Amino acid sequence: MVSCVRMGAYSIGIDLGGTNLRAAAIDKDGQMLGKISGSTPVAEGPEPVVADMARSVEKLREQFGRAHLAGIGAGVPGNIDMAEGVIVGWGNMPIFNGYPMRDELSKRLDAKVILENDANAAALGEKWMGAGRGVDDLVLMTLGTGIGGGIIVGGRILHGHVGMAGELGHITISPNGNPCGCGNRGCLEKHASATAISAMARLLGLGHDLSAEQVYELAAKGNDRAREIFKVMGEALGIALADLINIFNFPLYLLGGGVVASWEFFAPAMLAEIERRSFTYRSTLKTAPTRIEAAQLGSNAGLYGAACLPLQDVRP
Amino acid sequence: MVSCVRMGAYSIGIDLGGTNLRAAAIDKDGQMLGKISGSTPVAEGPEPVVADMARSVEKLREQFGRAHLAGIGAGVPGNIDMAEGVIVGWGNMPIFNGYPMRDELSKRLDAKVILENDANAAALGEKWMGAGRGVDDLVLMTLGTGIGGGIIVGGRILHGHVGMAGELGHITISPNGNPCGCGNRGCLEKHASATAISAMARLLGLGHDLSAEQVYELAAKGNDRAREIFKVMGEALGIALADLINIFNFPLYLLGGGVVASWEFFAPAMLAEIERRSFTYRSTLKTAPTRIEAAQLGSNAGLYGAACLPLQDVRP
Repeated sequence: MVSCVRMGAYSIGIDLGGTNLRAAAIDKDGQMLGKISGSTPVAEGPEPVVADMARSVEKLREQFGRAHLAGIGAGVPGNIDMAEGVIVGWGNMPIFNGYPMRDELSKRLDAKVILENDANAAALGEKWMGAGRGVDDLVLMTLGTGIGGGIIVGGRILHGHVGMAGELGHITISPNGNPCGCGNRGCLEKHASATAISAMARLLGLGHDLSAEQVYELAAKGNDRAREIFKVMGEALGIALADLINIFNFPLYLLGGGVVASWEFFAPAMLAEIERRSFTYRSTLKTAPTRIEAAQLGSNAGLYGAACLPLQDVRP
Repeated sequence: MVSCVRMGAYSIGIDLGGTNLRAAAIDKDGQMLGKISGSTPVAEGPEPVVADMARSVEKLREQFGRAHLAGIGAGVPGNIDMAEGVIVGWGNMPIFNGYPMRDELSKRLDAKVILENDANAAALGEKWMGAGRGVDDLVLMTLGTGIGGGIIVGGRILHGHVGMAGELGHITISPNGNPCGCGNRGCLEKHASATAISAMARLLGLGHDLSAEQVYELAAKGNDRAREIFKVMGEALGIALADLINIFNFPLYLLGGGVVASWEFFAPAMLAEIERRSFTYRSTLKTAPTRIEAAQLGSNAGLYGAACLPLQDVRP
């Protein structure tokens, strides 16, 4: 089992989100020693944001000391060229595309930095200190505006050939389903993300600009159409999860992101679909049950995962 | 990279198929030193078949010597309890279910035996000496009566929680597609296996009992309906492969099994579907192209993989 271990050490994890950034110092046992937020909006582009990242790390490094700092990890959205440490494509923030984030940050800090995709970092964080403690293999699916994913195999992030593994939001759940910007039809994220929930609310005449949270509130008040939306969304999720269970036979599949708050309304349909569509799920129910659970670390998952990266690199 | 290495050694691989068994002595460089076939039909059940397996291994062991034998690996159909070495479920051969194949064979041979699922063994074989030489990560899909799969991560077989990983034939390619014995609808293997090809030939009035090979011969003669069948089959395959590419971002996806002989008729539709449905595939076309290829070892893949198992277990 590979885990985040190094005697007497802590590391600093950075989580660059769609709006701003956070950084935390976390020790080898997973205790969060300190956490700070950046002050520069991500929309200002790579140079000021990297300067802000460096400032945040500096503050934590001064506070907790250089001597015991095992390393620095950064989780950022988009596809990462793992070999070069470059952001290849960050969908709605093209200003970052092609930016050599790892080396720029490393130069400013005069220290090695490990760059990672944010969904992958979140999956590693959950494995280290969240719902995935005790397993070495898991899939994390993050349900937000879109759907992202991270896959942990043998305790480590599965990167694939060029770091693009885990695009779980683009699993086809219906070959002629809703069109997706990726060129496909029927992508999971067009049927089960917060955006998809809002779109269904519009189609059902519930409102033109309802957020997924507002649809949840309607469901909680007993609105049948809002409940139907979560049922349809849960079925879509169940199809994709059944695929993943049939492919991986992992012990644990985690759901993270804001939409998970609606668990009570989508989970029954999701689980029914999984049970119907995966004989692996059914045939192991009594002997080695597949766990489908909510992630536990919330918005801190990425921070834990980013901090785990340098600790993990030091093999015991 | 993990590979099959041990100085001066050979190993013996057994491939137990749906009708009978074969065994081969293969040296550490992948050279097949000798191959023999068993004489007992598999339908006779576990006891006589295991006796036959032991006889086959004995013959090879006498011929090539005990001194240099690194170990014995056996690939068998069905789900294997990897911890116990027991065949849990062999679909159309229930007489084997629950049989402690590994220990029974080991007892007869007075030697350690490694038991493995046959599709997993085939994937490892292709990685070692077939189309997968040079990569550490690949997916093998075997198109036969059903569709099986094996996944290689970091040079080793991905087993999952209880050895059931790689059930690629049960990926849902259409949520309301053809019914499957597994309880699901729209399983890949009900749309893209030899059995599915025969069923479509029947639906199109081409014949009541045409084999996939006969449908191929009609397609080769220019029969439009036969060609349409392979187009539809290729599209189904493309949907599942696009899913796998989006999930794994592996450098190589291999297709094995008898149906691959019809490559010229199904591959164009398959590749078009992959290109449309996977932006991972498209966006890496020029920089790190995803290879979709026919497996190279044919019916010997399982023998190579089974022989690789004990060699691989000895780390360099």
